[in-house]
Amino acid sequence: MRDVAIAGAGMTRFAKYNDRGLKELTREAVDAALAAAGMDKRVPQVAIVGNAAAGLTTGQECIRAQVVLREMGIDRIPMVNAENACASSSTAFQLAWLYVASGMYDVALAVGVEKMYTEDKARALAAFSAGVDVEQLRGIMQQLKPPSEQKAGEESGAGKSRSLFMDIYAAGARAHMAKYGTTKEQYARIAVKNHNNGSLNPHAQYRERYTLEEILASPAVAEPLTRLMCAPGGDGASAAVLVAGDKVARYTTSPVWVRASALVSGSDNRAEEGGITARAARQAFEMAGMTAKDIDVMEVHDASAPAELSIYEEIGLCDEGEGGRLVDEGATEIGGRIPVNTSGGLLAKGHPVGATGIAQLYEIWLQLRGEAGGRQVARARAGMTENGGGMVRGEAAATTVHILAK
Amino acid sequence: MRDVAIAGAGMTRFAKYNDRGLKELTREAVDAALAAAGMDKRVPQVAIVGNAAAGLTTGQECIRAQVVLREMGIDRIPMVNAENACASSSTAFQLAWLYVASGMYDVALAVGVEKMYTEDKARALAAFSAGVDVEQLRGIMQQLKPPSEQKAGEESGAGKSRSLFMDIYAAGARAHMAKYGTTKEQYARIAVKNHNNGSLNPHAQYRERYTLEEILASPAVAEPLTRLMCAPGGDGASAAVLVAGDKVARYTTSPVWVRASALVSGSDNRAEEGGITARAARQAFEMAGMTAKDIDVMEVHDASAPAELSIYEEIGLCDEGEGGRLVDEGATEIGGRIPVNTSGGLLAKGHPVGATGIAQLYEIWLQLRGEAGGRQVARARAGMTENGGGMVRGEAAATTVHILAK
Repeated sequence: MRDVAIAGAGMTRFAKYNDRGLKELTREAVDAALAAAGMDKRVPQVAIVGNAAAGLTTGQECIRAQVVLREMGIDRIPMVNAENACASSSTAFQLAWLYVASGMYDVALAVGVEKMYTEDKARALAAFSAGVDVEQLRGIMQQLKPPSEQKAGEESGAGKSRSLFMDIYAAGARAHMAKYGTTKEQYARIAVKNHNNGSLNPHAQYRERYTLEEILASPAVAEPLTRLMCAPGGDGASAAVLVAGDKVARYTTSPVWVRASALVSGSDNRAEEGGITARAARQAFEMAGMTAKDIDVMEVHDASAPAELSIYEEIGLCDEGEGGRLVDEGATEIGGRIPVNTSGGLLAKGHPVGATGIAQLYEIWLQLRGEAGGRQVARARAGMTENGGGMVRGEAAATTVHILAK
Repeated sequence: MRDVAIAGAGMTRFAKYNDRGLKELTREAVDAALAAAGMDKRVPQVAIVGNAAAGLTTGQECIRAQVVLREMGIDRIPMVNAENACASSSTAFQLAWLYVASGMYDVALAVGVEKMYTEDKARALAAFSAGVDVEQLRGIMQQLKPPSEQKAGEESGAGKSRSLFMDIYAAGARAHMAKYGTTKEQYARIAVKNHNNGSLNPHAQYRERYTLEEILASPAVAEPLTRLMCAPGGDGASAAVLVAGDKVARYTTSPVWVRASALVSGSDNRAEEGGITARAARQAFEMAGMTAKDIDVMEVHDASAPAELSIYEEIGLCDEGEGGRLVDEGATEIGGRIPVNTSGGLLAKGHPVGATGIAQLYEIWLQLRGEAGGRQVARARAGMTENGGGMVRGEAAATTVHILAK
């Protein structure tokens, strides 16, 4: 397959946009990506749009790509709508890469867009729940509740007003704490780091800094999670333009190369293989001919603070059970050995589901070009993204890992 | 890119299945495809699932592929959910072809599945309407009504109880009749042909034969369409296994080769280019190094009888305005010069939206293997499918054309 580079990328600020819909958000992100590549909107030969929830939040199913891109004058090119829950737009990015790497097209546009805030809050929650097998939803929700809520019965208010996925993350965190002695404070420190990074990112939804005490004292969600340890839903869009290696010099003098694109789905044998994220990372490292030591900066799927800690271990930044120690050492802070979620991550930058995957790639693209401003990682030459989506029988339904390099 | 062949294909009968869901339908179609290829379910290395309406009819969004395939024991492989309205599964087929043609994987599974019948009929209609820009839905529906209904006002019962798309097709038919003298009887003859073909197909939803008079006397939908000229929604699934050319001999002695895969989206300049279907067909013919004369059998998107007639002209089976004459000559009947919709087409085989594209490919695969029974086309060596989906500003949002050959 051919070498492929990102010629341009862009995103909206993630936020609660009461007055902006899918079309306007898409336009801003795509215009920014095209502008970064110095490329006219008539140049891309194929477009792939990742979105997870528009069917349930806006009623727009089936042809989301065509509806949002036609509005800004991009049409007449093949368009594919790709979905993989929270990994929808990194899946779209893989397809865009594949269309170019295969030789079928020279220029591909990948887009992620999501509109979660609606006047009907139940719709947004329904959209999140569609990331599991909906026929098993009731059983999954009951099983995941902390003991205190199980006593209160299935219909407790707390269980109904938050996303199902926070129950899943909380259950995983409790198990990690019991097995390895990981502490609530260590999880909170990840939230301190990511909110601090987000304060340096003009595209982040939340730009406040918090002390450890403030993170711990924020409202409880599900033990050990507090609200500031959970990613907020949001609205936003992200886009990237991918170009064949031998054509990219027409558009930019600072291409960022796609060294690996791995997509893994399905259940796993955690005992043997260390989970789905570990498997996706191994595939990506093999494809790129790299190891974790070669990565200078990383964006991972911190839908909750405990998720980030587990990902450290699965990717191999430390041994299993050592994630807490890595946090205490400050290794994943900007200036540390391997900065993680310099953008603020999902925790602070926000998590408009279908837009997240390409927004992670946007941050690495910025870092590798040396354009990350106050959160720039020194001498960043290779970066990585990890984006997980959905859940089937206790494992992520789709996880992507991408490796980018200068 | 590498040569790719279909090693096996399968489908369920299309029907109204009150007691069967997405998982069971998927299992039947995938098992049939794998059995035809003599392939274990652990062999495919990637799966792409096309579905259009599950979000709105069942609430299952985001990870439809993982949910339906995990249930039958297919997991641990990359999975992508692809959507392009009525062209969802032919889009999934293109992606499967691309994963293999690019060299990334040797064996790919493409699936189409749809569950349209639910107890709540409004949900199925909402799902159809999601194939247009939902923000423009009200205006589109009003504009497309026949004059008699426009007088009756926007909220007339007839306009509310049928799919929006039948209004679109009826408006197109009226324009064709006015411009070229095409008759309602010529449209009805297409319905006679397809229902006759469907009577020979054990997978068809409707297997009744009808006379011209019966087609014309069936209940009016929107002038000139009667009910028997309109494709029914339905439930069903379809699947195909694609294998790299140099590996396919392991699985079958009768491979069917994918000679072209074209996907076109977006609006069009009909005056200059003859519409989106014409453009997709030209791309496919160029990719295959063939012309319309090389095609022995064809499945096209006859969501209504008039649509089939227009497609004759756009693909180049006859000149513009000559579609009616082609029907009168019987050229597209089995035994005619170029048999079209030997399966019964969408009209008789049924149209479970997301399952239709691969079901068309299944019919051509059968025909090229000489396994189409009572509807077999003699000496069929090359076949073609045309599958259209959604609508943006008056043009199909996505159209695929595939060319298969022995």
